[in-house]
Amino acid sequence: MTSAILSIGDELLIGQVINTNQAYIAEKLNSVGVTVERMITVGDKQEEILRSFVETFSHFDIVTVTGGLGPTHDDVTRSAVCAFFKTDLIVNEEALEHIRRLSEKRGIALIKMNEDQALVPRSCTVVQNARGTAPGYFFDRDGKFFVVMPGVPFEMKGMMEEFVVPFLAKRGTGAVIRHRTLKTTGIPESLLAHHIGDVDRLFDRDANITLAYLPSPMGVRLRISAKGETGGEVETRIKEVETRLREKAGKYIYGIDEEELEHVVGKMLTERKLTLAVAESCTGGLITDRMTDVPGSSQYFERGAVSYSNDSKHTDLGVPLSLLRQHGAVSKEVAEAMAFGIRVTANVDIGISTTGIAGPTGGSPDKPVGLVWIGYSDRNQTIALRFSLGEDRRRIKERAAQAALELVRRKLLKLV
Amino acid sequence: MTSAILSIGDELLIGQVINTNQAYIAEKLNSVGVTVERMITVGDKQEEILRSFVETFSHFDIVTVTGGLGPTHDDVTRSAVCAFFKTDLIVNEEALEHIRRLSEKRGIALIKMNEDQALVPRSCTVVQNARGTAPGYFFDRDGKFFVVMPGVPFEMKGMMEEFVVPFLAKRGTGAVIRHRTLKTTGIPESLLAHHIGDVDRLFDRDANITLAYLPSPMGVRLRISAKGETGGEVETRIKEVETRLREKAGKYIYGIDEEELEHVVGKMLTERKLTLAVAESCTGGLITDRMTDVPGSSQYFERGAVSYSNDSKHTDLGVPLSLLRQHGAVSKEVAEAMAFGIRVTANVDIGISTTGIAGPTGGSPDKPVGLVWIGYSDRNQTIALRFSLGEDRRRIKERAAQAALELVRRKLLKLV
Repeated sequence: MTSAILSIGDELLIGQVINTNQAYIAEKLNSVGVTVERMITVGDKQEEILRSFVETFSHFDIVTVTGGLGPTHDDVTRSAVCAFFKTDLIVNEEALEHIRRLSEKRGIALIKMNEDQALVPRSCTVVQNARGTAPGYFFDRDGKFFVVMPGVPFEMKGMMEEFVVPFLAKRGTGAVIRHRTLKTTGIPESLLAHHIGDVDRLFDRDANITLAYLPSPMGVRLRISAKGETGGEVETRIKEVETRLREKAGKYIYGIDEEELEHVVGKMLTERKLTLAVAESCTGGLITDRMTDVPGSSQYFERGAVSYSNDSKHTDLGVPLSLLRQHGAVSKEVAEAMAFGIRVTANVDIGISTTGIAGPTGGSPDKPVGLVWIGYSDRNQTIALRFSLGEDRRRIKERAAQAALELVRRKLLKLV
Repeated sequence: MTSAILSIGDELLIGQVINTNQAYIAEKLNSVGVTVERMITVGDKQEEILRSFVETFSHFDIVTVTGGLGPTHDDVTRSAVCAFFKTDLIVNEEALEHIRRLSEKRGIALIKMNEDQALVPRSCTVVQNARGTAPGYFFDRDGKFFVVMPGVPFEMKGMMEEFVVPFLAKRGTGAVIRHRTLKTTGIPESLLAHHIGDVDRLFDRDANITLAYLPSPMGVRLRISAKGETGGEVETRIKEVETRLREKAGKYIYGIDEEELEHVVGKMLTERKLTLAVAESCTGGLITDRMTDVPGSSQYFERGAVSYSNDSKHTDLGVPLSLLRQHGAVSKEVAEAMAFGIRVTANVDIGISTTGIAGPTGGSPDKPVGLVWIGYSDRNQTIALRFSLGEDRRRIKERAAQAALELVRRKLLKLV
């Protein structure tokens, strides 16, 4: 089955918003064997929208549309949908009830503009919006599918996961496409490629199986893609490549697909019944932010201290003032004292710490912007490692947080 | 002048890569008065590429194409360009010389595959690639422009900045386009629209000035877009609409364009010579992460405590155990005690706190997932406000962090 993805919104055409929906939808459609052949973006103009409907629906089996379903004057997708399918609007009671409940729950006075969102094209199947107010619409015409969803990524994703993907999976598309991403961190792309070696020696490469390197600030991802007729066949081929890659570079692979280091570390701590506390300076709360993104993290995550000032490093973490004076806040000694201090203060098994120069100012020849010390302390040892993480403030924070979590992972696995 | 942006690449169609080129090019074209009406993405297939060339070049004044100019077998854009303009390939000596120099500099042995990149369509104007090997192509046909660039963002940006933008600016497009975004938070889209009222009563709406509502988890943005013949004229019209919007909804507007609440609050604290400390439970470090994203934040941001456990709320912040027992950690009383506690402990002017149920578990009929108390304490008062922030863990954290920063802003401006 072939498909087109259509995005609607002036904010996309002026470059105010980067379109992340198209890539997300493409990935999801791929996951149920649907090939995406075209992506189109048009503005909030009825005639433009209609023209794109005509074009895509005549060429492709599946058309997914996002955007322009909001309650304000500039949202015109719904009326274009009605014009295209020659239908009118009716109230959908379930959507209306949902909007009322949502407004009540959030303590918002319901106005007519909200209620109008429950108006849907008469001849569609309504896709309820569990995460927002605007419902989606689904049309099945002679075996061709047309689905309209809100442009808000979070709401669209809910509909894709709860409706579109299960629907297509059940219906069957005649093909299976699978991707698996092995995530590494702490190793440059070229070195990773060196470890892995020539791809053609790694596995029998053909049009139905590929390996891609995807570098990112958080680490290099290795993506295996396979296409076939059955899930079993495709899984076997992916598994074969994954095994080879793990033989070559297993220690750098911390997770698969959507898994983040905070999930991996959280799971390891849970299994080992260990607790963790974090003392952050340059990462400014990012490590604890990530740790606490994991449901159930309160089981092992005890506390975090963002000790930005020297004073707080001293009073909260017990870092001796003499140490701060002698070595400066950004030093191996202070990183170690912070990790040790938070471990003892919070009475946990593992303490980690960061201290560095996030910039843009504050650097010196000795301690340039991007210099970060990461401390680790458990009952057996207290250490700190030195990192050089670039020049961009946000990037430095992100890389330092990633490196700190990776340090915990490697310590727990005794890889370092 | 109207334009279409065309992206070529299988990696985009499988969702492996998020397309950031389109937004970048759109913004740059807008900046020289060119309206983008359509964005299209197709795969690395010659017939698909050709079809998209035909479609776009017949409808628009300017077509920008990126992708598929690499040296490997799967890059087919160049041959599609030759077929479309009915021309053949010739060696461009300048490009060849550049490729040779670059290879030498990088210590890479030059192979035929590299040299072939200097082959360009005979009838084009070559756009040299200062940042990579593949040159771009420019065609001027009866006042219509067609430009082909590499898909690598860094290389494409070089050509946009050094060639496309200056060319269009010099040539003149007869138009000036400007946007201004007013950012609000803490008010739902429908209620904001209600306050602002009928757009047609707000200003004389015509095709050259528009107002758009852009909802996001962090608040609703109001984007004013104007088009005209001179910068002065356009600025005046935008300013007029901005003034009306501020009259109607000024207290909800915290910033303009790229400004975030952490910048706004940081600036206000700096101006007032005030210091801040944060005690986070459910936001788990996100507030301090945001505060410390601002260069120079160490001037006013003293420290953050992520007090996830009851014990840390007691020992770090001095929240009485009796209060925790009596009201539970997620309560008005504890939020207030946390805000007060961090203010006194850190010896700062303002303390803020968050405590809530981020889910997915831990909710009860009394205290459902999404319930968040946000505390604020200064020398005159200590208060806490109740919020209901949905059901998704990350969203709850993001909305709570935004609400906490907004509370500081409103307190400093005496809006609440």
